[in-house]
Amino acid sequence: MEKYELDWKKMTGLIPVVMQNAETGEVLTVAYADKEALERTQEIGLATFYSRSRNELWTKGMTSGNTMEIEEILYDCDGDALIYRVRPNGSACETGNKSCFYRRLQELK
Amino acid sequence: MEKYELDWKKMTGLIPVVMQNAETGEVLTVAYADKEALERTQEIGLATFYSRSRNELWTKGMTSGNTMEIEEILYDCDGDALIYRVRPNGSACETGNKSCFYRRLQELK
Repeated sequence: MEKYELDWKKMTGLIPVVMQNAETGEVLTVAYADKEALERTQEIGLATFYSRSRNELWTKGMTSGNTMEIEEILYDCDGDALIYRVRPNGSACETGNKSCFYRRLQELK
Repeated sequence: MEKYELDWKKMTGLIPVVMQNAETGEVLTVAYADKEALERTQEIGLATFYSRSRNELWTKGMTSGNTMEIEEILYDCDGDALIYRVRPNGSACETGNKSCFYRRLQELK
């Protein structure tokens, strides 16, 4: 694989993105990006995703004001996942929680 | 959605899992779990995934010894993503790096 090449095909055009608070390390959300969403993210410096339900690009916080400023973007060894490391301007979750991961899974048994 | 219900259908049976070092907050890998992988993880207390390439369950480190002990499992607001918070017994990445996210994306432009 070439340097910086991401394996868009493997993910049928979408790559999962972990959004992480760059300062605290807290994982905020998992969402998806296509090539365009990643390019937009790099252009404007704000976390942008591809919404699978609305089939459109979606820059986090454009309506709520809770934008997520990109500090750096990491990609994994096999080029099929990303981390947006961000400085959050508000809560990342539509529930009002800082992170979407505010619940702990109990035993399923 | 009921308490603890995960949206397996939305993900066609697979849910993305962020594996995170519970102590440092470092994101180690992104992989996938089906219901069985999650149950196995809870039973044995070691991070277990579903391998899309091999089509089988896969407990991290069973051959290398680099197992990942589960401290807690978090799930997100809409039940379609998980975090395994772990204590790693070695590197999480097959490259030998602690994390699979050891590279920073440069500008694509």
